[in-house]
Amino acid sequence: MQIEYPQLLPERTPVPVFDLVIFGATGDLALRKLFPALARRLAEGVLPAGSRVVGVVRRVGSEDDLARLVAERLKEDGLSQREIDAFLPMLVPVRVDAKEPDSFKELEKVLSDGERVRAFYLSTPPDLFVPIGRNLALHGLLENGGRLILEKPLGHDLRSARAINGAIGEVLPEARTYRIDHYLGKETVQNLLVLRFANTLFERSWSSRDIDHVQITCAETVGLEKRAGYYDQVGALRDMVQNHVLQLLCLFAIEPPNTLDADAVRDEKVRVLRALRPIAGSEVLTKTVRGQYGAGSVDGRPVPGYLQELGHESMTETFAALRCELDTWRWAGVPIYLRTGKRMAERCSEIVVTFKPVPHSIFPARDSRTALEANRLIIRLQPNDGLRLQMMMKVPGSGRLKLVPRTLDLKYETAFDMRTPDAYERLLTDVIRGDQTLFMRRDEVEAAWSWIDPIVEGWHEYYAVPHRYQAGGWGPSQSIGMIEREGRSWAESDGGL
Amino acid sequence: MQIEYPQLLPERTPVPVFDLVIFGATGDLALRKLFPALARRLAEGVLPAGSRVVGVVRRVGSEDDLARLVAERLKEDGLSQREIDAFLPMLVPVRVDAKEPDSFKELEKVLSDGERVRAFYLSTPPDLFVPIGRNLALHGLLENGGRLILEKPLGHDLRSARAINGAIGEVLPEARTYRIDHYLGKETVQNLLVLRFANTLFERSWSSRDIDHVQITCAETVGLEKRAGYYDQVGALRDMVQNHVLQLLCLFAIEPPNTLDADAVRDEKVRVLRALRPIAGSEVLTKTVRGQYGAGSVDGRPVPGYLQELGHESMTETFAALRCELDTWRWAGVPIYLRTGKRMAERCSEIVVTFKPVPHSIFPARDSRTALEANRLIIRLQPNDGLRLQMMMKVPGSGRLKLVPRTLDLKYETAFDMRTPDAYERLLTDVIRGDQTLFMRRDEVEAAWSWIDPIVEGWHEYYAVPHRYQAGGWGPSQSIGMIEREGRSWAESDGGL
Repeated sequence: MQIEYPQLLPERTPVPVFDLVIFGATGDLALRKLFPALARRLAEGVLPAGSRVVGVVRRVGSEDDLARLVAERLKEDGLSQREIDAFLPMLVPVRVDAKEPDSFKELEKVLSDGERVRAFYLSTPPDLFVPIGRNLALHGLLENGGRLILEKPLGHDLRSARAINGAIGEVLPEARTYRIDHYLGKETVQNLLVLRFANTLFERSWSSRDIDHVQITCAETVGLEKRAGYYDQVGALRDMVQNHVLQLLCLFAIEPPNTLDADAVRDEKVRVLRALRPIAGSEVLTKTVRGQYGAGSVDGRPVPGYLQELGHESMTETFAALRCELDTWRWAGVPIYLRTGKRMAERCSEIVVTFKPVPHSIFPARDSRTALEANRLIIRLQPNDGLRLQMMMKVPGSGRLKLVPRTLDLKYETAFDMRTPDAYERLLTDVIRGDQTLFMRRDEVEAAWSWIDPIVEGWHEYYAVPHRYQAGGWGPSQSIGMIEREGRSWAESDGGL
Repeated sequence: MQIEYPQLLPERTPVPVFDLVIFGATGDLALRKLFPALARRLAEGVLPAGSRVVGVVRRVGSEDDLARLVAERLKEDGLSQREIDAFLPMLVPVRVDAKEPDSFKELEKVLSDGERVRAFYLSTPPDLFVPIGRNLALHGLLENGGRLILEKPLGHDLRSARAINGAIGEVLPEARTYRIDHYLGKETVQNLLVLRFANTLFERSWSSRDIDHVQITCAETVGLEKRAGYYDQVGALRDMVQNHVLQLLCLFAIEPPNTLDADAVRDEKVRVLRALRPIAGSEVLTKTVRGQYGAGSVDGRPVPGYLQELGHESMTETFAALRCELDTWRWAGVPIYLRTGKRMAERCSEIVVTFKPVPHSIFPARDSRTALEANRLIIRLQPNDGLRLQMMMKVPGSGRLKLVPRTLDLKYETAFDMRTPDAYERLLTDVIRGDQTLFMRRDEVEAAWSWIDPIVEGWHEYYAVPHRYQAGGWGPSQSIGMIEREGRSWAESDGGL
């Protein structure tokens, strides 16, 4: 059939004039993600004239360095000189010491225009969230609709998360607090809502009636990078599962919200998190697997093990696999396997939905070749984002009927002949527009920690030492054992989509 | 996920040594389809040594012509000289006059070996089916498991079909009668059974609960070709709908058979045909549309109208559209729109399944662009056979949420890196192997006529004159009106799959 593809020109809700203040402007995240995102939005004509990006630096004299650092970074990121030259005038460096209330006066001067939208991005260690929030409030900078954007980690357990949320809540209402999880800004993640609620076919099968089990994998190939000190305190469960992986699970599993309003969607997400059956005590030994990578090779290049990178002993997991269940009408009885790790065989994030097998096969299973594989829907988030539906097909030819799995594919890159914006590009303008849909609400963050904490406690109580796995593989064999014991298998990633 | 594609080497049920006798060996079908199919099977090593293809010619002296005609035809069909040279020795010309019993003695001599599988392909006008069958029986040639293959048309109404079937039934049991419909030999048509019964995803939605309506289209671009005399007696309804289109409908709509045995499948097909709600009397005026092409252009080339091609007045339809319904638990309330025609915009056969719309849209329909289109599954039979699943997707980018239909695709040609055999290749070896699954049983043919006859009668009774349509279009506007009145639209073919 002839599909009339509508014109795909951007048709956006206008972005109002704004001042975006970035604390930690010379930090890794700001340079690598935030400035490039803003410069690209500017190049696309989305940012209104007169808007400013205020970069907060700490050290005396480093105001002058900022423009140079940003320019270098934008160039590395592939922006043209013209685009860089257009962006730099937006950049206003300011020196502020987060813990020094007086130093905020400088910021106050810069932000004298109270009419424009004002947002503060706290791209800093989390122990600065509360001091910065308080100092901003002290100088009245959060009045007139000012917004705070908080980067993860939002605490390291329920208690610390509550402390941060409570202190921020004292200076700012929830409706102006934007807890960022960049996974939610990914096109494919947003498309999960569209896949489910703009289409009947899959949604009709989206329950224990038709689905056998679900797998969510977020695999990285990198090791510690520059985050050793931080990461070793945290580990894979708290660094990845508590936020990204559970957010994916939420969007996968939510009931249809009545509307797309931020709170309608987030209400449903909280319901999912609260329906997660607790894994506590000795259950951690059967329902979770911790791993820590040893030496190995990634992409054909030898890499050291975690302890070598770290330089000292550690019990921190760089891999976590969990078997969880949702106690709801829709999902009861459907195991959901979560998996994340560093130094894995390939970088990939995907959700794999395995449907139930046919109730009765009319096809003679003469040998293993003709066994019917259950249908699978693969929602690939990165890289090569797209959808893949695996089905059984007949091999052409006569004689014996031979069936093999083949796939129906949709690659976003091909389906939409346009650049896929980075997650931060979307999220930053959402803040300016005042749309909280893709940001985590306080109760979401806390519900996630409520589920994570007993697992961490169980690991301590039952001495759940991480199992060694070879860098460049798919995690420890215990992870494979956990799923195979139930007659299922991890869907190994297929980068070829 | 990594899909381990099993090895796709042929692994066939062996074909026993055979003699295949083709009546009408110098006819269009034999030369264009049967000999090339056999030569290709031979080249693939599927036909056992010593097998023979006996070509029956009518005119004295034309025995010598046959090998030349066949060789020419195979060459045109792209077979190599080596393949042609390998095939010609299989070919045994014999002169037989179908209506002259004595002339069958020659055939008897050739077929002296009673051990081998023996099959007779009646590629002749249907008025010869009975004389040939009787003469074969007279000479004992149908004993020892001899098989008859009957080409359509099998009668022109229920009464004539019954007469042929009855007469053939007197000389041969049903289990050795092969009524061919080459549509059933197409890979994609066979794959319908696999699509439905080797996969749970679609089958779970395969009913009035989830499906809004179904469209089956068999469109040709050709006009009368050399069949003017025959076609004008028959018309589109009897030439295409009674067999090909209803066969597609059967495979689309059947209940799961308990096994793949020929009779288990055909029992279910008969149940579908018998569930077709009759269209009779004045209903033909609202539930059917007849069309006849006028002049126009096809593929950018001007073509004459039907009457010009024919050379005289005619009330024969070259296009038929029907709105039918199946009175079963599964399909009650799901309109099934059938459509076939000559001189259409493009050559295509496809089944389009439109699923029900979402019960409630959470996506703001700011303009027509964001209206949600219902999911569609397109089963493309020819050309570019494959599967296409149309879904709503999010257009990348921030700001307003824009949704557009995009497709997941599977092209057989790409999915299986091998030549797709022609329908006759499969069907001919199925006869030799004794597999009747893809052949029409007597009761199927008669059930189809039982449904067709009242429509033809209704057309006569209510003077349903064919509506003129322009060659190179999609049929008369009345066909569009028939479906649009019910708030639906024909899915125009998309050759781009």
